[in-house]
Amino acid sequence: MDGMFRETSRRAFLRGSAAAAAGATVGGAAAAATPDPLITEVQDWASFTGTGVDEVPYGMPIHFEKDVIRRNVEWLTASPISSINFTPIHALDGTITPQGCAFERHHSGAIELSKPDYRLMINGLVERPLVFTYDDLERFPRENHVYFCECAANTGMEWAGAQLNGVQYTHGMIHNMEYTGIPLRLLLAEAGAQMDENLWVYVEGADASSNGRSIPMAKALDDVLVAFKANGEALRLEHGYPVRLVVPGWEGNMWVKWLRRIEVTDAAVESREETSKYTDVLEDGTARKWTWVMDAKSVITSPSPQSPITHGAGPLVISGLAWSGHGKITRVDVSKDGGVTWETARLGKQGDTKALTRFYLDTNWDGSEMLLQARAMDETGYIQPTKEQLRELRGENSVYHNNCIQTWWVDESGKAENVEIS
Amino acid sequence: MDGMFRETSRRAFLRGSAAAAAGATVGGAAAAATPDPLITEVQDWASFTGTGVDEVPYGMPIHFEKDVIRRNVEWLTASPISSINFTPIHALDGTITPQGCAFERHHSGAIELSKPDYRLMINGLVERPLVFTYDDLERFPRENHVYFCECAANTGMEWAGAQLNGVQYTHGMIHNMEYTGIPLRLLLAEAGAQMDENLWVYVEGADASSNGRSIPMAKALDDVLVAFKANGEALRLEHGYPVRLVVPGWEGNMWVKWLRRIEVTDAAVESREETSKYTDVLEDGTARKWTWVMDAKSVITSPSPQSPITHGAGPLVISGLAWSGHGKITRVDVSKDGGVTWETARLGKQGDTKALTRFYLDTNWDGSEMLLQARAMDETGYIQPTKEQLRELRGENSVYHNNCIQTWWVDESGKAENVEIS
Repeated sequence: MDGMFRETSRRAFLRGSAAAAAGATVGGAAAAATPDPLITEVQDWASFTGTGVDEVPYGMPIHFEKDVIRRNVEWLTASPISSINFTPIHALDGTITPQGCAFERHHSGAIELSKPDYRLMINGLVERPLVFTYDDLERFPRENHVYFCECAANTGMEWAGAQLNGVQYTHGMIHNMEYTGIPLRLLLAEAGAQMDENLWVYVEGADASSNGRSIPMAKALDDVLVAFKANGEALRLEHGYPVRLVVPGWEGNMWVKWLRRIEVTDAAVESREETSKYTDVLEDGTARKWTWVMDAKSVITSPSPQSPITHGAGPLVISGLAWSGHGKITRVDVSKDGGVTWETARLGKQGDTKALTRFYLDTNWDGSEMLLQARAMDETGYIQPTKEQLRELRGENSVYHNNCIQTWWVDESGKAENVEIS
Repeated sequence: MDGMFRETSRRAFLRGSAAAAAGATVGGAAAAATPDPLITEVQDWASFTGTGVDEVPYGMPIHFEKDVIRRNVEWLTASPISSINFTPIHALDGTITPQGCAFERHHSGAIELSKPDYRLMINGLVERPLVFTYDDLERFPRENHVYFCECAANTGMEWAGAQLNGVQYTHGMIHNMEYTGIPLRLLLAEAGAQMDENLWVYVEGADASSNGRSIPMAKALDDVLVAFKANGEALRLEHGYPVRLVVPGWEGNMWVKWLRRIEVTDAAVESREETSKYTDVLEDGTARKWTWVMDAKSVITSPSPQSPITHGAGPLVISGLAWSGHGKITRVDVSKDGGVTWETARLGKQGDTKALTRFYLDTNWDGSEMLLQARAMDETGYIQPTKEQLRELRGENSVYHNNCIQTWWVDESGKAENVEIS
């Protein structure tokens, strides 16, 4: 048991607030002789039967959890078909994101494409331009990996200070799933692609936006997957059914959905999606280019504005997520005083590479206000920066790639608020 | 790339059947000059917009996948509230099972229980009998682990020979999720439980069946979790919302749902669920008792009766699942000739302990009939047995705990059938 949960304080807590709320600690034989109202209530649960196994062939969350859903912010974008919604990370735990509530980002809406209609072309600098059907793809060797997918714009609004009062909105452009797919290098080899390290692949989707992106050959040959399952089942429509690209650790825009074509080229295409978008304009007006890797980042998901502390002082679990496009998360520190002092959090399990890692700080809250922060470190030794540190490098014009430390102000009532401290 | 995918055969395949089916391999510049009908079709996809991010707050599978659902078998049980349905493992890949299609087993139906109404009692041989609210539980340290849950009756019908023509029905009483929960030992410590190794905990649910089971203290203190999330989100109603027990590697019946009470006792309760049920009657009329651990097992999910080979000879991915209640799967062998010769399969990734492991055999099918089998080995050195070997130990009366090698007969057309060979 964690040292923070001292037997005495825990006992006091359970005999105090919780016992009062629950109506009783149970008095053994005495309780049996004089039934406690609570116990009677508990036993009432056992007096009726429930839903049969024939009623719900594919289940949805129970109605009590109806608020644990993706949410969009209408004013963020002009149209919902070129927009984003957000994963309810304030209400999730562990590391896997269910497909049903995993954020969506579309440039021209989520299109419906059947497996029989599906085709994937590989062309360009290849010996044999090929078109694969979905059934063809199922005949190639495949792998399973858990990876996070983060939009480059995640936390982007926060460049302008504390804007959105909820971790779902500040950090919810992320999800984490187990993908099943074919290493892209196998399909490139099949087409007899040239594979020099100075070459590129240009990938595009079957949606109206096409969303074309250039990927260096070294990455294409490394860990990129042509994926058709997520968390064991078919990709959902909104995640690119039937086939999407998985580009581990790299910005979500490159994870092309409804994957249609892969062209081997001798230069980057410099598409709209990698010039006017997804670059960061620096102080001198030039742009940071090819900023593909999502740097190490973390955030506390509970407590947070949508997940306040509802109990009083005493044992408190502070929990959050950490991730790095460069590999594994090795450590997460948590501060209660806005970065003056830090405690090392416990990792839920040693993280997979380029996957979400859950962290916990099992602590004892004294009931006073806190300025909560988390700070991630990855296996390269990189430490998640403050916004001031990022501003020094990037200036004032950035829209994307904000991986700075986030602060929640928790007041004495347990409510949390998004704040900027300096 | 796997050696089985020889460049030549693969080339022949793609130039042959697939290219013919798809209409063309693409002729580079020639294709651009004379648009291929296929390519025109592909480009049509990009001419319309899709669903916006505001339309589906919580997503469901695309309608093309409407057959990938839990299914029950009406004649198996007298009533659907004391029955089982089956995970569509023939259509899944990877290792995670989405909650929505994860099998259900209820003894009196799936009950609806809200978090505010939830109570968990710990009593018996404890210093302080306690009642926890749901909010109390959220204040304890928690962990994340992926574990399989298999009903002891999984594959039970197959004791009588090849009965059910689909892996969903023969092996689908299993699922595999990432659980978030509190180690049970922390709650027992909180109540000041006696923890001698000869003691037991008796656990029961809030449903009408109560489904009480006795668990030895050593297991209770080891890896048992009081869980409230699965695959990141709240447990679904049918999986015990808001709290269930997770008993890694042990038969699913012990994973009590709607967990209501944990009593520390000095002897096993010998409940109905562990005497008249979930035991195996031997040849001499005595019963194997306390057969909690699910022994190593595997099955090929594709090809299988519900997932036939739809292409002809040539490259073929044979895939399946393996698991062991004793720890990690270390190896899976696949036979195409009913166990005469074996090839070692590739593991999707090194399995977690007491979790599903995905295996693949990337092979070349010559188009002749096959008797497909898989055989799992775990870290204890245990090798999955044949049914004959199990019969020698157990006789003819067993209903539960059938972990024998399964055989699919694949005919020359690619159809698969459940068969028993001897």
